[in-house]
Amino acid sequence: MFYPEPIAKLIDSFSRLPGIGPKTAARLAFYVLRMKEEDVIDFAKALVSVKRNLTYCSVCCNITDTDPCRICGDKSRDASVICVVQEPKDLVAMERMKEYNGHYHVLNGAISPMDGIGPDDIRVAELLRRLGDEQVQEMILATNPNIEGEATAMYLSRLVKPFGIKVTRIAHGLPVGGDLEYADEVTLSKAMEGRRELY
Amino acid sequence: MFYPEPIAKLIDSFSRLPGIGPKTAARLAFYVLRMKEEDVIDFAKALVSVKRNLTYCSVCCNITDTDPCRICGDKSRDASVICVVQEPKDLVAMERMKEYNGHYHVLNGAISPMDGIGPDDIRVAELLRRLGDEQVQEMILATNPNIEGEATAMYLSRLVKPFGIKVTRIAHGLPVGGDLEYADEVTLSKAMEGRRELY
Repeated sequence: MFYPEPIAKLIDSFSRLPGIGPKTAARLAFYVLRMKEEDVIDFAKALVSVKRNLTYCSVCCNITDTDPCRICGDKSRDASVICVVQEPKDLVAMERMKEYNGHYHVLNGAISPMDGIGPDDIRVAELLRRLGDEQVQEMILATNPNIEGEATAMYLSRLVKPFGIKVTRIAHGLPVGGDLEYADEVTLSKAMEGRRELY
Repeated sequence: MFYPEPIAKLIDSFSRLPGIGPKTAARLAFYVLRMKEEDVIDFAKALVSVKRNLTYCSVCCNITDTDPCRICGDKSRDASVICVVQEPKDLVAMERMKEYNGHYHVLNGAISPMDGIGPDDIRVAELLRRLGDEQVQEMILATNPNIEGEATAMYLSRLVKPFGIKVTRIAHGLPVGGDLEYADEVTLSKAMEGRRELY
């Protein structure tokens, strides 16, 4: 290429990120060239810090900078419920709701035979250890409502049933603010299946 | 937010880049978390290096890691022609063509009264100095075919005419492989205006 080496290297680094092609990478690299030096240094430090200062919580397997993480260490939260999610982002989505006060378990993935990901590749062993050790009464399966998430929920449900713990799955149905007309058949059928009596 | 501080900082850094919203920034930050440590360190170094090791060529104002840049220092290139472009990216596009063997001048912007950018904010003074000093016979205006680029080309053309230098503008017309049916009126009118006799 015709770019000077430092910028060519940065374009290469940007284009390794998901969803960023060579043109976007070049645009971002040229933007960096015009950023203030201290902002660029902060960016570089933030990159390295994510790799060096973050670990997985030894209890819930969420990413954290303290161990155990803030949620696992919070005595005011209800330790009798564990909400199982796929990714740290999903945990953040649940927390944003501000209604759930139990603990979490982050699988860091979902079972996906197509991608060669089995139960041993996600944090299932850690979950079972917690169910044996702690006073857990309910496990809420909040994996994604897609093939991998459903397969993972099904697998965990069968695995955990013998422990005598209540296993629940978050509801499928129409999203609030949605429109019947535009709902797909599967969602509609799940919404009918999960209908509740009104009092 | 509910993210640990290192990742929150990285999300913030990513979301300052153009065209990257909070969701994409979070996705990129989590991707970085899973990258190899050496790749992340290379990325961080590339960022800082772009700010520290790149300067503007004292002749053509292109970004470079050597001064003068490789093109200005190349004795085999024709110094009697200067192609004026807006951005370093445009120079790279011209070089990719592999047909132009003259010199360049990178304005690093275009005149745009709407954004408060006048002739003093782009590298016009440096261009005039070159036209006075060097054996320049032709100046090719290759600014973008939009309002700012046309205004800049018009301005430079009037400014440079008194020097007795041949001033040319790259052609407007239908892109090769294009379709008359889908061409906009302005392009079509420019294509008609710029028609050439065939022999």
